[in-house]
Amino acid sequence: MMYRHPTVGQIRIADVLTALGNPVRLSVVRVLDAGGEYNCGSVLGRLGITSKSTMTHHWRVLRESGVILQQPSGRENLLTLRRTELDSRYPGLLDAVLAGAASDEILS
Amino acid sequence: MMYRHPTVGQIRIADVLTALGNPVRLSVVRVLDAGGEYNCGSVLGRLGITSKSTMTHHWRVLRESGVILQQPSGRENLLTLRRTELDSRYPGLLDAVLAGAASDEILS
Repeated sequence: MMYRHPTVGQIRIADVLTALGNPVRLSVVRVLDAGGEYNCGSVLGRLGITSKSTMTHHWRVLRESGVILQQPSGRENLLTLRRTELDSRYPGLLDAVLAGAASDEILS
Repeated sequence: MMYRHPTVGQIRIADVLTALGNPVRLSVVRVLDAGGEYNCGSVLGRLGITSKSTMTHHWRVLRESGVILQQPSGRENLLTLRRTELDSRYPGLLDAVLAGAASDEILS
């Protein structure tokens, strides 16, 4: 199944902020940003999340906001953070968000 | 009525992003950031919003996430963006979000 993704010009900041404004989705973005190839299962494994069903909504929000690409690769979906595109569209945003998430982690 | 607000240390980035990830709330933040003294009514007037009742939820989300202060002043509530505190807690975040909102406006 091929998913539709917004073009860079179709991305809107309110959607990106909503996508990032959830602890689980923010954790996913942090994993993807750290590098490496991930599919849905391996991200969940990395985060210690066992319920795949509750994640379907999160993948959709991340994908439709323009934060990640979700692309079929064999029997899996490859997940990629749209880092370059987001950085060109909203300079400094993702860096500030990821630094903020790391700083929250130290506080809590 | 005095509202409770989170201290800087109690602010969490997911809540801030959720608060900013809504077009109406983002517009409110842009008005407050542009400077000047605002109460709920004058922000709504500035945005051309006439329904006060739908805004009660938005004020609460902005206040409880730590984005704005909502303080009684006479018979009104004075609204203030917690710019300095947010900038110290999440350097560059608000600048990137406000620049992104301005850039979206040009595209749409």
